[in-house]
Amino acid sequence: MNLHDTICAISTAQGGAIGMIRVSGPDAITATDKIFKPVRNIKLADAKPYTLLYGNIIDENSSVLDEVMVSVFHAPHSYTGENSAEITCHGSAYILQRVIELLAKEGCRIARPGEYTQRAFLNGKMDLSQAEAVADLIASSNAANHRLAMNQMRGGFSKELRRLRDQLLEMTSLLELELDFSEEDVEFADRTKLLELSEEIERVISRLTDSFRLGNALKNGIPVVIIGETNVGKSTLLNQLLHEDKAIVSDVHGTTRDTIEDTITIQGTTFRFIDTAGIRTTADIVENIGIERTFSKIKEAEIILWIIDASQLINKGNRTASEQVETVKNRILPLCEDKSLICVLNKCDLIHDDELHTIYRQIYSDSGINENETIRISAKNGDNITALENMLLDASRLTEVSDTDIIVTNLRHAEALTQALDAIRSVQTALTSRLSGDLISEDLRLCLHHLAEIVGEVSTDEILGTIFSRFCIGK
Amino acid sequence: MNLHDTICAISTAQGGAIGMIRVSGPDAITATDKIFKPVRNIKLADAKPYTLLYGNIIDENSSVLDEVMVSVFHAPHSYTGENSAEITCHGSAYILQRVIELLAKEGCRIARPGEYTQRAFLNGKMDLSQAEAVADLIASSNAANHRLAMNQMRGGFSKELRRLRDQLLEMTSLLELELDFSEEDVEFADRTKLLELSEEIERVISRLTDSFRLGNALKNGIPVVIIGETNVGKSTLLNQLLHEDKAIVSDVHGTTRDTIEDTITIQGTTFRFIDTAGIRTTADIVENIGIERTFSKIKEAEIILWIIDASQLINKGNRTASEQVETVKNRILPLCEDKSLICVLNKCDLIHDDELHTIYRQIYSDSGINENETIRISAKNGDNITALENMLLDASRLTEVSDTDIIVTNLRHAEALTQALDAIRSVQTALTSRLSGDLISEDLRLCLHHLAEIVGEVSTDEILGTIFSRFCIGK
Repeated sequence: MNLHDTICAISTAQGGAIGMIRVSGPDAITATDKIFKPVRNIKLADAKPYTLLYGNIIDENSSVLDEVMVSVFHAPHSYTGENSAEITCHGSAYILQRVIELLAKEGCRIARPGEYTQRAFLNGKMDLSQAEAVADLIASSNAANHRLAMNQMRGGFSKELRRLRDQLLEMTSLLELELDFSEEDVEFADRTKLLELSEEIERVISRLTDSFRLGNALKNGIPVVIIGETNVGKSTLLNQLLHEDKAIVSDVHGTTRDTIEDTITIQGTTFRFIDTAGIRTTADIVENIGIERTFSKIKEAEIILWIIDASQLINKGNRTASEQVETVKNRILPLCEDKSLICVLNKCDLIHDDELHTIYRQIYSDSGINENETIRISAKNGDNITALENMLLDASRLTEVSDTDIIVTNLRHAEALTQALDAIRSVQTALTSRLSGDLISEDLRLCLHHLAEIVGEVSTDEILGTIFSRFCIGK
Repeated sequence: MNLHDTICAISTAQGGAIGMIRVSGPDAITATDKIFKPVRNIKLADAKPYTLLYGNIIDENSSVLDEVMVSVFHAPHSYTGENSAEITCHGSAYILQRVIELLAKEGCRIARPGEYTQRAFLNGKMDLSQAEAVADLIASSNAANHRLAMNQMRGGFSKELRRLRDQLLEMTSLLELELDFSEEDVEFADRTKLLELSEEIERVISRLTDSFRLGNALKNGIPVVIIGETNVGKSTLLNQLLHEDKAIVSDVHGTTRDTIEDTITIQGTTFRFIDTAGIRTTADIVENIGIERTFSKIKEAEIILWIIDASQLINKGNRTASEQVETVKNRILPLCEDKSLICVLNKCDLIHDDELHTIYRQIYSDSGINENETIRISAKNGDNITALENMLLDASRLTEVSDTDIIVTNLRHAEALTQALDAIRSVQTALTSRLSGDLISEDLRLCLHHLAEIVGEVSTDEILGTIFSRFCIGK
């Protein structure tokens, strides 16, 4: 992996009016100079940084390929920290491709995905968590995940980690001072003070780790599990909800990086709907694996949409309402303690209001579900869909995240934090067990190591490769 | 159609690392200034033109929406000739949309397709034929149509028209001087000289009109009609040819503006394949409308690919070779005088070489087609496909077009030129018939009018609307 050559890439998507090509590396300016003839007779190397030069890209046969604007940036005052040039040209696929070919002939290599940001990281322009946020920012498709990515890119998370690290280093230095005098068997470091400090560190790491559940929901959509028997109108309801934001859904097409079932954005909040196998009410089928899998999916969810076919519920000859309600009461409700449950009575256009009243009473008394958690709709006719959307938004309660809240959105960070949390807890145990300073110091160093992993102070080529390969080309 | 307000649009396609928003109009700089906070404390209006400012886009709640680069251009030194600003931001669909919303709140209107270039035209930055070439340039997907669009955008065609116009004005002034003295019945203008001048003008317009056939072929692909009976392997051959350049074909997806059957780009030259109804050999079916339609399509073509199932040709019990060859000889060849014919013997893997020899002899002697025009292939196995591609390239002979050749590529221009040609021919007739100067002058003005239409000196809102609506948004 050569990171000292000069790279080039098309940074804009294909099909627009305008296209941009970025060049970065030691020879970025001289290579661009060879294919560019500015209208003002000036060498690119002599051009003032942060200025735009108007001129022509000239091909091998001295023909004009395009009329363009070029800007140059001198190291270290550029995105990558290297010499850089940006060529803004017409958005023709042919022209963009030819410019890249001409640059390649001048010795530039086509950049790998994320290589510009990787170089920015390696040149100390940003830490690893900030670099990762750049990809999140580009992929952001709604207000919530945009805000989190922006906050992380601007260093909010990094600052929090730096604070933690300073505290850990303080503890370490106190302990290591003690080790220097270990033969004298004195305790320089006040164990009570150390314990207090470790408890504070543990609180912060713990809060960060916990925030990942919310962060992940904001980034990838709030997980909503839909449960209910087959033919209760699950697909019809999904299509109804989807229809409202079809454009937005297709907007994120291509930017979604995880396999998801269906995402729906309602007033800027994205929900990720997770399909489940139908819940059956007969005892023996409840036992089977498919259903167990449903229960494990419920554990991942923030919101549970329990869909009932109201018209079937009153048909007592078929299957009694209480049987269905019993299943939910015994199997589902215990899993919902820290989740939101919305009980959706579908196909309400097929039944009378007085029948509905009976159903409601039955559900409320048998399951303990209350009225606020229940809604009656007709997915087919679109009745009450807006009210259901508002219930989903209320259940998500994501508007409470402020600009300054530090929320972990990245699985890699969450894993490193979990390991840091284990380490700091070992420190606490060691302190209360009055273990020797060198053992405590080892755990402290482990905790520091995992925090350093997040910002990229310790990293392997393999880790970096994995992170930056998820970027788009040209960034 | 308000052309004096301030407009904004996303100029890059969705999905890239980088996005660009352009703002143009009297308030472009002040509106951008309200949503942009540069790192250096400076007002955009005070920023030097052609410089880049680094800073943040700030939303309604004073939160940072994105870190961006902004450049400003003061009227008339911009693309549109108006005050302009360009915002380069991260390519997130959400961010781009929000920047547009923020600009809209500052009074900017979303630009219509092509409105930037339309304003550039109306502000005298380019003539209409140059403006049209901008759209062609952005849509260009191969070397040939790129070169034509670039030449037209840089004013090659406009210069030729200006020369014609000067000559026409010279003729007009000579004639009008005569009209001033009409009562004295003298001829100031030497009719022989006028006739010479009109003949020269007619030659140039005629050449330009003729060039449209080539121009259209270069722009939209060289029309190739494939004829042959059903099941001779037409689709298999098309797929074989297509396979070689599948990527390039999908590259132009979205940029192709005409309904076309299939385009294939071979070594930078685009061929447009036109499907036809099968040619039958029995006398009564030959008469039907479908076949007549095939013949009319042949007239549009530059190249005719006549595909024969060689394996069927030798099966005399089915249908004799001479019957097929007769049809082509009597019905097709007469239409091919100024076209290239390639006779493709398909399924040659199924027959022996000596059988092939018989077929060849029959074709050559019966139809007058010579050996150079014949190729034997197996579309199924891919045998000889490269040789066929080279025959297509030879037949297209498009590499002969030089950088300086003026080729008409636009139907609107071709139509105006045809009308100008009619007018100048009327002038010639009038001159040879020794008609009076005022009648000749009228035809000269008509000729001038049609040439002026091309560069947009005379135009209606309707014509402009039609032209610029074909542009992409943001240019």
